Amino acid sequence: MDLNWNVIFRVTGALFIVIGISMLPAMIVSVIYNEPNIIEAFIKTIIPSIFFGSLLMLFNRQKEDRTKVRDGYIIVALCWVIASCIASVPFIISGEIANPINAFFETCSGFSTTGASILTDIEAMSKGLLFWRSFTHWLGGMGILIFAIALLPSLGISGQAIAKAEAPGPTLDKLKPKLSDTAKMLYLLYLFFTVTETILLMFGGLSLFDSLIHTFGTVGTGGFSSYSDSIAHFDSAYVDIIISIFMILSGINFNLYFIIIRQKLKGFFKDAELRLYLSIIGISTLFIGVYLYAAGIINDIGTSFRYSLFQTATIITTTGYATANFDLWPTFCKMLLLILMFVGACSCSTGGGIKVIRLSIILKLIKRGISLKLHPNAFVSLKMNNKPLPVDTVSAIASFVFLYIITIFASTILISLNGFGLMTSFSAVVACLGNIGPGFDLVGPVMNYSIFSNGSKLLLSFLMLAGRLELFTIFLLLTPRFWNPNR
Amino acid sequence: MDLNWNVIFRVTGALFIVIGISMLPAMIVSVIYNEPNIIEAFIKTIIPSIFFGSLLMLFNRQKEDRTKVRDGYIIVALCWVIASCIASVPFIISGEIANPINAFFETCSGFSTTGASILTDIEAMSKGLLFWRSFTHWLGGMGILIFAIALLPSLGISGQAIAKAEAPGPTLDKLKPKLSDTAKMLYLLYLFFTVTETILLMFGGLSLFDSLIHTFGTVGTGGFSSYSDSIAHFDSAYVDIIISIFMILSGINFNLYFIIIRQKLKGFFKDAELRLYLSIIGISTLFIGVYLYAAGIINDIGTSFRYSLFQTATIITTTGYATANFDLWPTFCKMLLLILMFVGACSCSTGGGIKVIRLSIILKLIKRGISLKLHPNAFVSLKMNNKPLPVDTVSAIASFVFLYIITIFASTILISLNGFGLMTSFSAVVACLGNIGPGFDLVGPVMNYSIFSNGSKLLLSFLMLAGRLELFTIFLLLTPRFWNPNR
Repeated sequence: MDLNWNVIFRVTGALFIVIGISMLPAMIVSVIYNEPNIIEAFIKTIIPSIFFGSLLMLFNRQKEDRTKVRDGYIIVALCWVIASCIASVPFIISGEIANPINAFFETCSGFSTTGASILTDIEAMSKGLLFWRSFTHWLGGMGILIFAIALLPSLGISGQAIAKAEAPGPTLDKLKPKLSDTAKMLYLLYLFFTVTETILLMFGGLSLFDSLIHTFGTVGTGGFSSYSDSIAHFDSAYVDIIISIFMILSGINFNLYFIIIRQKLKGFFKDAELRLYLSIIGISTLFIGVYLYAAGIINDIGTSFRYSLFQTATIITTTGYATANFDLWPTFCKMLLLILMFVGACSCSTGGGIKVIRLSIILKLIKRGISLKLHPNAFVSLKMNNKPLPVDTVSAIASFVFLYIITIFASTILISLNGFGLMTSFSAVVACLGNIGPGFDLVGPVMNYSIFSNGSKLLLSFLMLAGRLELFTIFLLLTPRFWNPNR
Repeated sequence: MDLNWNVIFRVTGALFIVIGISMLPAMIVSVIYNEPNIIEAFIKTIIPSIFFGSLLMLFNRQKEDRTKVRDGYIIVALCWVIASCIASVPFIISGEIANPINAFFETCSGFSTTGASILTDIEAMSKGLLFWRSFTHWLGGMGILIFAIALLPSLGISGQAIAKAEAPGPTLDKLKPKLSDTAKMLYLLYLFFTVTETILLMFGGLSLFDSLIHTFGTVGTGGFSSYSDSIAHFDSAYVDIIISIFMILSGINFNLYFIIIRQKLKGFFKDAELRLYLSIIGISTLFIGVYLYAAGIINDIGTSFRYSLFQTATIITTTGYATANFDLWPTFCKMLLLILMFVGACSCSTGGGIKVIRLSIILKLIKRGISLKLHPNAFVSLKMNNKPLPVDTVSAIASFVFLYIITIFASTILISLNGFGLMTSFSAVVACLGNIGPGFDLVGPVMNYSIFSNGSKLLLSFLMLAGRLELFTIFLLLTPRFWNPNR
């Protein structure tokens, strides 16, 4: 086994530094709100983290041009786990989340942009830690390591190996010849969305703090709020609509925005994945909106559509904010939302789930399967955006979706050992693996994950990271062949 | 559109005759139990059915050697619907199931070997109609048309086109050069199982009537019982074990039994699908048995394993008999059973579901997907029983499973319009499409399907037939290209 430990340690070192630096804004929030206990907790995390990271980088300075695929997977998996560990330290030190497993669950949920929480009293938390908790969404949304590469381009690693393992969805266009340039462009666009939404939310009457918290949760498609009743707290149609729009925008393939920047608006709307994504949102909003009104649950058609658009957007983009307790909605609406939990957002967005592009290819696969019964010798390639897809790409997508489904079934068996009902166990797994947050029943939108045993919380944390890293990155490390390639 | 109407009408005619003749044993039961009203209902169905069938055959005598693939699909789909319609007539005429949609649901459930019932008071039914209801399981298990071909070999159709559309599972070995000979061999073996189980059940103290009813339900993996508390009615360990064994035997690929007959016992146990099937049964029985005992639900370890073996066997073979109300079991056990509902039995058995062979190939597909991430250029063929699988076979299996899952999601949305809970709606669809019978919650093992609207009953009937005919046969007929090939 010849792993490139030099590169692995150097990148890990960089990560320690980056996470340490990333805590500074949250510490400033604590300074503003005068929370000495929290400031101390931050300082006790930031200084050792930067110090240790610098040491790691110092002792592994030698440049290596080639990172092997195997190294890329180890780096990504390792860094996401380490990042979640470091991020949980201030929660533990300050005593606001004393149980380390709870704190780890919360930060895994943050970085993976899941938004599932074990907090039973959010309003009792300090502002600094609430800010940090939401900021992990922002960092995780576009990728922690892509962020590190954007900040520290001279890490001396082949970024493509990292991007392969970390980027969400089956494709990542090379926008620029150097990955660090692509990373910078992505983060600039991300920053643009962040600033715009923050300003728009402030126009809606939110404080700067609340605007930032909920913007991080939106653009990262995370879902952490500073209120236990989530977005329903503001009870404002304006806020609902702004957040709905930005959730939907954040669920779109970010590469497509560069097509707009290059002034090709036609090309933007020609993208097959985007069209299917918008169609699903439209249909789901329509059906839920009409049903809620017709069933007499909401008496005003406008309000009905406001709620249906918001819940559709929050679930398909895997954000997980709530303006209504959809667990109390009729089965028809719940079933539509459950399906959206599986569908997920577009590839190369900040959202999770199976992703619309894979659904689109699966539908084509089914169509071909049916016509093959009639014409057994007419086996043709599937096409996406008028380009034929290689057989191994289609096979990889099919195997991803099957692994996704089997992971859900197997994990639900383990979670069911807690003794809760089938819907609770099943939807907790679906909501964590899909990076959504709320599920149904005991993990519904007004509930939380504190009910589970420590073992289950670790399993759910694992699922959140596995879902965010698109399964293979994590499952690869669990195969014996990965560690012993000559077997 | 050049369909071979001559052949289609001739086979349909044969079907009318065969179904008519098949009612004779049930009518004899009515004679024995002195049910004049039921005898009349049978006569009023049998005579017109045979008369009309003979007319159809008479006017379409011209022999055609070649049946096209397209004709095969139409014949199979049409005949299963017509068979269910004819079979429902005695129920309607006698008034024992006055609502035609309920009667159609019951016979679809019978032929498709589902075992889901709308009857709220089984014990109030006449013996003749109970016998007929269970006999449809026996006819449907091995295939209504394969039965017709075995009885009337000179139909002048290419049986292979029929077998392709009707046989369960992706493969059907050509045991004999002529399909009518293969069909006869299959039915001889089927008859052997039927006679053996009937005798063994009579040793257990059951009447001939009860033995036959429950044998039909077992070997056809159907699940209709003459008692509302199903097999629990007998409360006998001996009966439970005999039925468990015969359910498991009926869930095995029938082609494998011919290997035993040719005295190659080694070859029998080398079959990859059989090994996986038996392993799943073993693991599930062990886990459920230990859990029920450890959780204190059953106080005796022997009884615990008796129940866990029976429920495992009844669900994986998609029979649907019950010795315990598993809907009251802990979530862990329910989740295991839910997974078995998806797995199903072996290919070319009388059971339904996705089938073990497909699960096996999906697991191989996932394994290859993971290793492809590490070695992107090492795309190798998947193997089954040491033989490489063609790419289009693997693709067809993947597309089948995806279609299966999407059908479940889409149908659950429609069923949820009834207003029942998610578990009820979801498990009703899974239990009907998988030809199982009981689900969870309001369609649990001690409940029935009478709660649903007429529209939902028709949808569930459609799902039962679609599941029995392995989806494609039915879905193919819904595509415009099937009816207009030049499009």
